[in-house]
Amino acid sequence: MSPDPTAAPPVRGPLAVIAGGGDYPPLLTRLASERGHGVFVAGLEGAADPAAFGPVELQMFRLGQLGRLLEVLRRRQIGDLVLLGSLPRPSFSALRPEASTLKHLPHFARAFKGGDDHLLRGVVGFFEAQGFRVHGPAAIAPEITAQAGSLGRRTATADQKLLIERGFSLLTALSPYDVGQAAILADHRVIAIEAAEGTDAMIDRVAEMVASGRLKLARGDGVLVKAPKHGQDLRVDMPAVGIRTVERMAQAGLSGIGLRAGQVLVGDASALGAQADRQGLFIEGVA
Amino acid sequence: MSPDPTAAPPVRGPLAVIAGGGDYPPLLTRLASERGHGVFVAGLEGAADPAAFGPVELQMFRLGQLGRLLEVLRRRQIGDLVLLGSLPRPSFSALRPEASTLKHLPHFARAFKGGDDHLLRGVVGFFEAQGFRVHGPAAIAPEITAQAGSLGRRTATADQKLLIERGFSLLTALSPYDVGQAAILADHRVIAIEAAEGTDAMIDRVAEMVASGRLKLARGDGVLVKAPKHGQDLRVDMPAVGIRTVERMAQAGLSGIGLRAGQVLVGDASALGAQADRQGLFIEGVA
Repeated sequence: MSPDPTAAPPVRGPLAVIAGGGDYPPLLTRLASERGHGVFVAGLEGAADPAAFGPVELQMFRLGQLGRLLEVLRRRQIGDLVLLGSLPRPSFSALRPEASTLKHLPHFARAFKGGDDHLLRGVVGFFEAQGFRVHGPAAIAPEITAQAGSLGRRTATADQKLLIERGFSLLTALSPYDVGQAAILADHRVIAIEAAEGTDAMIDRVAEMVASGRLKLARGDGVLVKAPKHGQDLRVDMPAVGIRTVERMAQAGLSGIGLRAGQVLVGDASALGAQADRQGLFIEGVA
Repeated sequence: MSPDPTAAPPVRGPLAVIAGGGDYPPLLTRLASERGHGVFVAGLEGAADPAAFGPVELQMFRLGQLGRLLEVLRRRQIGDLVLLGSLPRPSFSALRPEASTLKHLPHFARAFKGGDDHLLRGVVGFFEAQGFRVHGPAAIAPEITAQAGSLGRRTATADQKLLIERGFSLLTALSPYDVGQAAILADHRVIAIEAAEGTDAMIDRVAEMVASGRLKLARGDGVLVKAPKHGQDLRVDMPAVGIRTVERMAQAGLSGIGLRAGQVLVGDASALGAQADRQGLFIEGVA
């Protein structure tokens, strides 16, 4: 149950990618296949796009078909799982449980009571109790996370590195309160801290303050820092930045991003680096 | 130079209220007069409304008339000052310095370089260097701040008090980063932290999350906490809540406010308590 993604046991046979939405599940599927894993994709209906996965064994499941999923995984002698991708707020029909799923519901009813983190721990605990090993995506393909160093051509200046370090220190101070995956620092101070609104909304808030003249950003000022919360289970809940994050940053007039190396999903790092180059931003993985 | 408002020396003669905008300067003027202080109001043009002050000696000054202000204060043998009220972003014409002000400009040029906190300390330091004693409004009239206990009829429940304490603890953890005068906790977690956007924008953000269904608030859930940052000079920079804060809270569906007693301006506490009663919120001063 260690949240350290590097401490995961090795994958011993075929690997199932339990896939939600977004680009990460198809990417991880490709990277895992390239590394020689026999990958089976269990796509979640309403979230995963089966056409995005290319040539791979794939089957779609409703959330209410957990019992069927377990049967399929066992029939395929799969003991190793990755859970990855976004989940929309499930509709009632998606949740409608099949008979083979009903017996598992009390476990999830308990897990649902404690908020998102608790729910994710409940999902991991469920699969582990069923005898599966749950791996983080970084344990399967470390390059799907930010590695130490610059992702694009630009690098952070000494001043920007100081802002990044101050930001990481702030996020660490927030960790005991189970909040603070991201913050924006500029003008020698902390100008935004993310809580329930999410990173995109936080960046847009800074953009509005800049547009209204409430906040002035000098050239090269304005850094986003992003890191997991202390104790966050990086196997199923890793912070992420993507192309849209970089676009929003540029629109806000911010200068770059500092990421905790190995602990933030970036997907295709070279594509993200190229986007940063186009927008004139730096993205730094910081060990 | 202690920021503790209770450590201010006693007022020894006439008191000048250097008045910006808003309700606090007229209120403090009235409270100080009722306590027997001979009050002179130096209203800042474009900020203070001279008609709001009632029967009191008052003179208006542009920001560029600092030299004249000093002359008037000295002529009136005033050694004690309170600086209170909001300042709009000064226009160039308001700043246009008179000859007697020019010699003081280097002091303020230095102070302007370090952000708002630094500027306020610079203003205090300037008046002190000129031989004046600068008092916090709480030193003149403690009732202008939240006192310990409920401001209205409602009181926080035990659960709400736990949220408040957790919120104060969070704000204390943020203090070393010179950020975090306010936060909102709900659903057993921290859902918003204030940085440069200000308390109103933070409350509105929570209202939007509730309206869009991203955040669900149970009845009695959702608490705003507000306290000064550690080291904040409470003589010239005290956090505040007002009628509009309570209205916004109610619109967002939040349940109440926890304030650090003696350290947050509330203005007319009974009016604020009545407003909280009308909106069904609690406001608690916490020692």
